[in-house]
Amino acid sequence: MKAVVHRGLGGQELLAYRNVPDPVPDPGEVVVHLKTAGLNHRDLFVMKDRAHPEREWIPGSDGAGIVEAVGAGVENVRPGDRVVIHPTLGWERADEIPEVPAILGGPSAGTFAELVAVPAANVFAKPDFLTWEEAGVLPLSALTAYRALFGRGRLKPEESLLVTGIGGGVATYALMMAKAAGASVAVTSRSADKLRKALALGADLALDNAADWASVPGMRKADLILDSVGGALFPRFFALLNPGGRIVSLGASSDARIELSLRELFFSQFGLIGTSMGSREEFIEMLHFVETHRIRPVVDSVRPLSDAASAFDRLVSGSQFGNLAIRISD
Amino acid sequence: MKAVVHRGLGGQELLAYRNVPDPVPDPGEVVVHLKTAGLNHRDLFVMKDRAHPEREWIPGSDGAGIVEAVGAGVENVRPGDRVVIHPTLGWERADEIPEVPAILGGPSAGTFAELVAVPAANVFAKPDFLTWEEAGVLPLSALTAYRALFGRGRLKPEESLLVTGIGGGVATYALMMAKAAGASVAVTSRSADKLRKALALGADLALDNAADWASVPGMRKADLILDSVGGALFPRFFALLNPGGRIVSLGASSDARIELSLRELFFSQFGLIGTSMGSREEFIEMLHFVETHRIRPVVDSVRPLSDAASAFDRLVSGSQFGNLAIRISD
Repeated sequence: MKAVVHRGLGGQELLAYRNVPDPVPDPGEVVVHLKTAGLNHRDLFVMKDRAHPEREWIPGSDGAGIVEAVGAGVENVRPGDRVVIHPTLGWERADEIPEVPAILGGPSAGTFAELVAVPAANVFAKPDFLTWEEAGVLPLSALTAYRALFGRGRLKPEESLLVTGIGGGVATYALMMAKAAGASVAVTSRSADKLRKALALGADLALDNAADWASVPGMRKADLILDSVGGALFPRFFALLNPGGRIVSLGASSDARIELSLRELFFSQFGLIGTSMGSREEFIEMLHFVETHRIRPVVDSVRPLSDAASAFDRLVSGSQFGNLAIRISD
Repeated sequence: MKAVVHRGLGGQELLAYRNVPDPVPDPGEVVVHLKTAGLNHRDLFVMKDRAHPEREWIPGSDGAGIVEAVGAGVENVRPGDRVVIHPTLGWERADEIPEVPAILGGPSAGTFAELVAVPAANVFAKPDFLTWEEAGVLPLSALTAYRALFGRGRLKPEESLLVTGIGGGVATYALMMAKAAGASVAVTSRSADKLRKALALGADLALDNAADWASVPGMRKADLILDSVGGALFPRFFALLNPGGRIVSLGASSDARIELSLRELFFSQFGLIGTSMGSREEFIEMLHFVETHRIRPVVDSVRPLSDAASAFDRLVSGSQFGNLAIRISD
């Protein structure tokens, strides 16, 4: 099969597009013929921090396609099923967090290939209303956003949400999911273009990082801040929160090291809560939520599998709005 | 009536024991003839940070006694009822945190007096198995510990809890409540004497602050850390937590300013959660829990109302183990 492979320690410049042996399903596994795949920042982290850089490896955690073969003992999945792939491995229940959550494509063989072998428990019926490109970029971003908002952040209807760094996959899902849940949503960015796109996508308020947010007309205090920026914005957060407000942290595109006052934290009963990916239980809930509210991923652009490296160039540049998709087969 | 009054800005050296006018119940209020009262660090904070230091004020948030009079419209409370007083005012539901939670004795007139007027909704039947001294020190510490452990910290049976700074009222309740709930509990202190007392009270492991905790035999990683120390111990916490572990912060007897790595926080899905006092809903749950498990407060010492200032001297010294009680009437 054709695949994009990585060897060594470094970024997308080490990717190569070439023929590799087809995977064969182990007992309990299925092999999916991929239609599409999606990019995540996590792919880049794994490329730069691999335990065995001398081994060739296929990246990619997100994908959708048609089941081609099933291994021994697989009963509920059949060849021909149209599926999306749940990317985390061995994490069943939301509050039973594994020591080191494993994930498809890190370091097992991932979705940047014509075929991928995954546990049968990790494939779910593709929502009919999504295109293959939309289904291919859905899994990890939507799962991460869903857990961050509802599981870890306990967002309630009528609450007020602030999403920092709008533009990335998780942030755009968070915006759409929170609006669907009835919350009001403000978003932040350094880019006027991304702020315009977020308003078109339903954001109630768009905040330029250069502005004094508290003085922006229409600004209200937040019950929940969903943050992937970290240190560059963190010093602003406590003053923006209602009593009992939560900050859910899922990334640090700026400094990861922050300082805070415990006195402010306990007096106002704030919470600072870390989150990462999500469990199989939450993937099922997320799919149900996405289908109920007909939430379509924002696809920034689509490239063929042979151009995966240039898709990563765009991800690294930070200029995308939404998710980057890879077209693998028709 | 006799009361302990405070005027000016400062500590317990400004307290005076003397006669003041009896309170009269407003509509919806009851007047309680106090048998006992209890001290809290909060009393000292209010003494040092009063909005109207020129006015004479009676401190005290904790107390128990017998209802003496009821105001207009009070139906479910009768003179002669033996009651404990729920100290927070205007905070009904656990997750509807008021902007500035009000509390008995801060700045309204408190419990360091023979009589106190409180809303009828703030008195509850005194648990029969408690002495008056135990009932008088119960309310605020037990409420704070209960919310911190179960509401904010979501402690589950079989989980592992670390309580820092054992000795104070909230910490000793937390130890007893967590053991009653089936958790394993480690405690920390600088004092060998307090560590011995905590072991006698049921702690599974006692950790001297001077030790390298991770290398102490029997040490296991914590699912929850209940912390009232802050900066002096905070740098140790992340390495002591299981994935998904929570730190509930309710005080900072050392530095309140701390530094942390968001990357560690989100990767291991930790939570840092502030808490303070508790709602009426939680007070009712706490009383039920205390009665079900027959949890008796640890009373460090009992002094007459006229010696309130010396009781605060002991609280300031930090040498107490458990709560400090004031005997007001027989």
